[in-house]
Amino acid sequence: MTQMGKGRLEAFSDGVIAIIITIMVLEIKVPHGTQWEDLLPLLPVFLSYVLSFVYVGIYWSNHHHLLHTVQHVTGRILLANLHLLFWLSLLPFATGWMGENHFVVLPSVLYGMVLLACAAAYWMLQKSIIQAHGPHSTLAQAVGKDRKGSLSLILYVVAIPLNFTRPKIALGLYVLVALMWFVPDRRIERSLAWFDSANGGPPDAR
Amino acid sequence: MTQMGKGRLEAFSDGVIAIIITIMVLEIKVPHGTQWEDLLPLLPVFLSYVLSFVYVGIYWSNHHHLLHTVQHVTGRILLANLHLLFWLSLLPFATGWMGENHFVVLPSVLYGMVLLACAAAYWMLQKSIIQAHGPHSTLAQAVGKDRKGSLSLILYVVAIPLNFTRPKIALGLYVLVALMWFVPDRRIERSLAWFDSANGGPPDAR
Amino acid sequence: MTQMGKGRLEAFSDGVIAIIITIMVLEIKVPHGTQWEDLLPLLPVFLSYVLSFVYVGIYWSNHHHLLHTVQHVTGRILLANLHLLFWLSLLPFATGWMGENHFVVLPSVLYGMVLLACAAAYWMLQKSIIQAHGPHSTLAQAVGKDRKGSLSLILYVVAIPLNFTRPKIALGLYVLVALMWFVPDRRIERSLAWFDSANGGPPDAR
Amino acid sequence: MTQMGKGRLEAFSDGVIAIIITIMVLEIKVPHGTQWEDLLPLLPVFLSYVLSFVYVGIYWSNHHHLLHTVQHVTGRILLANLHLLFWLSLLPFATGWMGENHFVVLPSVLYGMVLLACAAAYWMLQKSIIQAHGPHSTLAQAVGKDRKGSLSLILYVVAIPLNFTRPKIALGLYVLVALMWFVPDRRIERSLAWFDSANGGPPDAR
Repeated sequence: MTQMGKGRLEAFSDGVIAIIITIMVLEIKVPHGTQWEDLLPLLPVFLSYVLSFVYVGIYWSNHHHLLHTVQHVTGRILLANLHLLFWLSLLPFATGWMGENHFVVLPSVLYGMVLLACAAAYWMLQKSIIQAHGPHSTLAQAVGKDRKGSLSLILYVVAIPLNFTRPKIALGLYVLVALMWFVPDRRIERSLAWFDSANGGPPDAR
Repeated sequence: MTQMGKGRLEAFSDGVIAIIITIMVLEIKVPHGTQWEDLLPLLPVFLSYVLSFVYVGIYWSNHHHLLHTVQHVTGRILLANLHLLFWLSLLPFATGWMGENHFVVLPSVLYGMVLLACAAAYWMLQKSIIQAHGPHSTLAQAVGKDRKGSLSLILYVVAIPLNFTRPKIALGLYVLVALMWFVPDRRIERSLAWFDSANGGPPDAR
Repeated sequence: MTQMGKGRLEAFSDGVIAIIITIMVLEIKVPHGTQWEDLLPLLPVFLSYVLSFVYVGIYWSNHHHLLHTVQHVTGRILLANLHLLFWLSLLPFATGWMGENHFVVLPSVLYGMVLLACAAAYWMLQKSIIQAHGPHSTLAQAVGKDRKGSLSLILYVVAIPLNFTRPKIALGLYVLVALMWFVPDRRIERSLAWFDSANGGPPDAR
Repeated sequence: MTQMGKGRLEAFSDGVIAIIITIMVLEIKVPHGTQWEDLLPLLPVFLSYVLSFVYVGIYWSNHHHLLHTVQHVTGRILLANLHLLFWLSLLPFATGWMGENHFVVLPSVLYGMVLLACAAAYWMLQKSIIQAHGPHSTLAQAVGKDRKGSLSLILYVVAIPLNFTRPKIALGLYVLVALMWFVPDRRIERSLAWFDSANGGPPDAR
């Protein structure tokens, strides 16, 4: 399999993620009235937009760090990347359904399922990159046991059924995972920093 | 005709394809109810979205491989590329019409016709690139007889009228062509790998 | 005024133009019926989409050639570029109004006015680039008297009032201007080819 | 914290800003009638679109200048950038609500609040870049006391409550701030020009 520039993979992913993050705002429909009360029904839609904006922002930022470690793009990485973009593209729908229905049970369950699918797809992308670069690659060593990734998956699996009995705790867990990832993945950054300093410069510094 | 950077051609194509793949999801309208039954009517829309997502993803991926071989961009290549983007831009409409009408005959026929037009446009783009680079270019040798491309065109031409008599087989053929292209074009990759190794590195490695 | 990379100017313009060309397709609303007759009312919308797609494609292609000649980006060029993007962004609205009303008088007049404004804005962008690079720059010499640009402006000015008396000829003039620009601007290409060959390579070849 | 290419940060921001500037035009709904009178009700929507287009264009242009000074991207800069994009993403909603309601009080107040939030987020992004590069960096010296930034914040804070008593003056202040920023930030340009000439070339010239 030949080496290919990762520039277009990044550009296409940036484009899709930028559109996903922006079309979610279209779910906040302009109200007909002109009083503050007319904005009130939009509050749950707005809050779910904020949560999803943070999630998509985190995915973009982590994707940025992840692809930073890629040396060559294989067909499998292309597919794994498209797979991740597919699940991310369902977030606007899930966000709209949850927000417009004030976080009732089933829409919140679906939202959690889409988040779970995104996390699993991200994990698979990470796996396919490690596989292409070998167990001694920068990424493989940086990710290590990937405790944060595993913890996210577990928290989603716990939160999804919790929506039926303790919906507020379930939502709280969605927010918790977002907060947990808010800071860019320092493990990768730290390992890369070491790699860069040992090699005289970062691989993709321009 | 002067040599021009292909960077903007790729960037513009990436932008258009990223938007096409993402606005298709807007056809999956947020339902008013909050039960699983309210999602059920969306299933055909969702399935047609999945199929079109895979198709657009394949086109993006193959476009990525195809432009990888381009050394210089001519006016004819620019036009052939716009022509391909035009037909791809009609996929969201065809997808929506087919999905919302549960894969009935005419919308499925139109969907196949748009797929056929995209495939023909892709073939023309490939042709215009080969023409600009000569019969001994990397791409010309990599594509060779282009059996997979020809087979796709034949399968579409068979599937379109089949919608009137055997609609399920017709749909199956649409899915089959997608599966057939799912793997990036190894002929091009293999030939490029040879070309790269013979020249010390890939042409667009950065 | 400092030299600035034109990379982001191109990237942002590509993004906006890619979105403009793609959201126009959203005006072709998915019909409720599933017969060919249900597609018939969409024909004028489709035809106006084709015309506008060609126009936006031409603007993107010419913009590509124009910025190819830019050596440094000034504040004035940034503004002139935003001004062009503003008028292009009104094309989807004008296209939709004209198409949905089967090319009746006033929507066709407005369409012509938006085309005229785009052409004038493009002329101003060209002017600002020439001004920044001096009368002996590649672009200044390539454009020369800019007969094609002036002719387009004249044809729009003729076509707009013609909508009131000879609407078909007016529409024919819109199509004629599009055809006239279909081929990338060979004056610029030829001059650049000379420039490139005299300097060992194109300025933005990567 | 490792050095990272700022290319993707720019590309993603360009994508989001390009989409924001373009989806605002979707608020100008195609009217059913075909007379000039049918366009008249769209005038306030159009005017608010023009104002927001200018604002988003200014933000893109200033963002372009600001990131020009960035040498390395930290996690904090990533977050501050996402925060700015979040508030900019609410502009289409605020623009639509203000325009469709003919600039009545509360929508105009909300519009001002979103502008204020964008300005504050921009200020925070600027701060985080200065913090990452040190008080003696090009940007820190270029921005200096940032009188124009502070003045904008003050004018928004004055204009927002003015909507209740002197709505026309409040709107006038929104326009005034836009005009004030219309010209790219010459302080940054001047300082960079000096920096570039002292170093033989701009840092990101390609």
